[in-house]
Amino acid sequence: MLPLSAFRKFIADKQLFSPEERVLLAVSGGRDSVLMARLFHAAGYNFSIIHCNFGLRGAESERDEAFVCRLAAELGVPFLSRKFDTRAYAKEKQLSIQMAARELRYQWFEEQRVEGGFACIALAQHQTDLVETVLINQLRGTGISGMHGIRSKNGKLIRPLLFLTAAGIHEIARSCGMGWVEDSSNASTDYQRNKIRQEVLPVLRQINPSLEATFSDNAARMEQAERLLGNTVAALRKSFIHDGPLQKLPLELVRSLDPQELLLFELLRPFGFHAEAVTRIISVLDAPSGRQFFSSGHRLIKDRNHLVIEPVQIAGTTTWILQPDDEAVIATGWTVSQHAGLPGQPPDEQHVAWCDRDKLVYPLTLRFWQQGDRFRPLGMKGFKKVSDFFVDRKLSLAEKERVPLLVNGNGDIVWVAGMRLDDRYKVGPGTEKVIIFEFKINPVGR
Amino acid sequence: MLPLSAFRKFIADKQLFSPEERVLLAVSGGRDSVLMARLFHAAGYNFSIIHCNFGLRGAESERDEAFVCRLAAELGVPFLSRKFDTRAYAKEKQLSIQMAARELRYQWFEEQRVEGGFACIALAQHQTDLVETVLINQLRGTGISGMHGIRSKNGKLIRPLLFLTAAGIHEIARSCGMGWVEDSSNASTDYQRNKIRQEVLPVLRQINPSLEATFSDNAARMEQAERLLGNTVAALRKSFIHDGPLQKLPLELVRSLDPQELLLFELLRPFGFHAEAVTRIISVLDAPSGRQFFSSGHRLIKDRNHLVIEPVQIAGTTTWILQPDDEAVIATGWTVSQHAGLPGQPPDEQHVAWCDRDKLVYPLTLRFWQQGDRFRPLGMKGFKKVSDFFVDRKLSLAEKERVPLLVNGNGDIVWVAGMRLDDRYKVGPGTEKVIIFEFKINPVGR
Repeated sequence: MLPLSAFRKFIADKQLFSPEERVLLAVSGGRDSVLMARLFHAAGYNFSIIHCNFGLRGAESERDEAFVCRLAAELGVPFLSRKFDTRAYAKEKQLSIQMAARELRYQWFEEQRVEGGFACIALAQHQTDLVETVLINQLRGTGISGMHGIRSKNGKLIRPLLFLTAAGIHEIARSCGMGWVEDSSNASTDYQRNKIRQEVLPVLRQINPSLEATFSDNAARMEQAERLLGNTVAALRKSFIHDGPLQKLPLELVRSLDPQELLLFELLRPFGFHAEAVTRIISVLDAPSGRQFFSSGHRLIKDRNHLVIEPVQIAGTTTWILQPDDEAVIATGWTVSQHAGLPGQPPDEQHVAWCDRDKLVYPLTLRFWQQGDRFRPLGMKGFKKVSDFFVDRKLSLAEKERVPLLVNGNGDIVWVAGMRLDDRYKVGPGTEKVIIFEFKINPVGR
Repeated sequence: MLPLSAFRKFIADKQLFSPEERVLLAVSGGRDSVLMARLFHAAGYNFSIIHCNFGLRGAESERDEAFVCRLAAELGVPFLSRKFDTRAYAKEKQLSIQMAARELRYQWFEEQRVEGGFACIALAQHQTDLVETVLINQLRGTGISGMHGIRSKNGKLIRPLLFLTAAGIHEIARSCGMGWVEDSSNASTDYQRNKIRQEVLPVLRQINPSLEATFSDNAARMEQAERLLGNTVAALRKSFIHDGPLQKLPLELVRSLDPQELLLFELLRPFGFHAEAVTRIISVLDAPSGRQFFSSGHRLIKDRNHLVIEPVQIAGTTTWILQPDDEAVIATGWTVSQHAGLPGQPPDEQHVAWCDRDKLVYPLTLRFWQQGDRFRPLGMKGFKKVSDFFVDRKLSLAEKERVPLLVNGNGDIVWVAGMRLDDRYKVGPGTEKVIIFEFKINPVGR
């Protein structure tokens, strides 16, 4: 009843691990991960089970941990488990609960992998997850890198269930009378994914019943195209001339790049330049020298024969551009991310801002305070100088020069990031679409 | 009310044509193409209108032609129109009505473009069409080439409405009180596209209200990646050694290709080799010499140091592979295409075969008659030798060696292509999914 030969063949074909290696299996207790554990057991592989208890669902979290513990005992394999205070961690790191759980999980998994001498960590994602991920990436906006979906092997992470669909797993679990636990929060935690799973995939499957197989084949082709791009860019990277802290890219080379936008974008990406900046840089290649462009950590100057790139310190004059399809601006010291949401009650958290999408004029910018900045603090009828707002909050000069302001395309200050939203941009009864901004202090050394 | 500056900017940015050039506008009379004509007129461009009357919708076809004729008169531009006997053409060429209309349209458009000295032909496709096309390609299975969707410029075809969405066009048409004609067959002619338009896009738009803009940006990035692939393959093509009718590709080069599958596929594609064949060729690179592979028009032999490719005549031993995501097998002389359909009443046409998907075992193969072949002709209870079937039909030896047989993965003959379906594979009350095969004689010289 277990698809054992297909499972072994997939692991061998994709070279996920070799039979003598030990694997650490991430098992939540849900159907997919329980089936994965049973397949590993039936195939006779050498593995341990690891489980995170995030303590977010009260008694249900305890029930899940106990279930996986019993499963490990039944299969006769070592069981690693740890309880996390996810809410406290999220608060401390100014992260969403989901992001916090993700960080905790991967940090701890990797620690345990190294400590226990495991070759890799196995996750129970399947082909239907792959289809969903590709569609979500497309909806967020993506280049070639978003089109390969979920990889069967990515560094130390492997996905040995990628040869099965959700329906296939359901059928196998049912036919072999396997037990598992249901996560009651699953249905609500990921709005986009659930919408795609429940409303989009059934229609697509009417057109192509082998939806998952087709998307997997597509993804494999996309991964090859991505690899070609990676090889090409790696070869081009050798054209950089290193000159102390400066890196110079000959204009002659830049002019000869074909496709120019894609290749220049990939070459400048490590310096933090976005696609929008690259388009503007290309537009001045034949203009007089001296034009400057800033990313979050670098300045690019077009001189007579080169694009000259140098690291820059945070300065009052730096501006970061935020386009509709940017996920985040990652600066030295902080990150501002954005994603689309649906109308609802914004949480009462300063590091998150819910804005009415229809009032935003992209590109938005992020910059530090300037003389004369004013805004309408949330809940107030009148305007207030940003400098006065800082004084009220007892910020030092150094501190106030580090608070990014989110500025609308029309010049309005939308959000004193991490502190106060502008009243004009709040979500109201007439709001149809919401953009959620999140402010986060980066770990030191970032 | 007309978005004239955005229209002019899009044409200039994408370099669709220059203001002094003359453009031939394909106008059906529907909302999109009427708006296109009004934009060209308002912008002061030099253009003529061309219209096809396929005679497929009786009085409605005449009404549309008259409507477009009046529009051209109102705008004061030349009007070209022609009536086609589409049904007769489809019958003669063994094409579906849709394919026939498509062929007639493009042949005649291009003729008129050359004769009239027009720079290009303008089609009224918009951004929402692009989103649909990308999704349809994904559902059919695609490599990087299917991901760019609809191009704003492709040879002599331009799409100057690609800066507008369907909703945007609707709003503009409404606000300026523009008239157009509705095609009553639109809702039924393209099942997949309608399903995506009506059931999928509304859900995707709830997740990303700027769906079309995001997909357009994605498509532009994919087009750049495709261009990179094209450049790389063009450079690699120079490695072919020409030796009389033979072309040789050094094994050393083949072994060094990275990504190997994608690049070898692109190099062998002009010789008709499918992805599946490429995978098998790669698997024998280190095997003893002499392994042979056939495409519809070529033989590839692995010798000690090369892949040697030579053109081959049609022979009884040639076999063509048909995978679920192949669109067609195009051989010298004929084409067999396949696409998914939904259960219904199959048309009474010999060149089309409706099969129960669940009974097909891929890969299917196409080959010519062999001694001992037998099948169960549609409507018959017993088996019949294929050779007897040919005798009944009074086929000559030469003729019967040119009729491809569609063979199931289990060895059954599914279809004597263009002549008779096997009774076991017909669509029945229990059929859930349908694959429709179509047989077509290729134009001479193909």
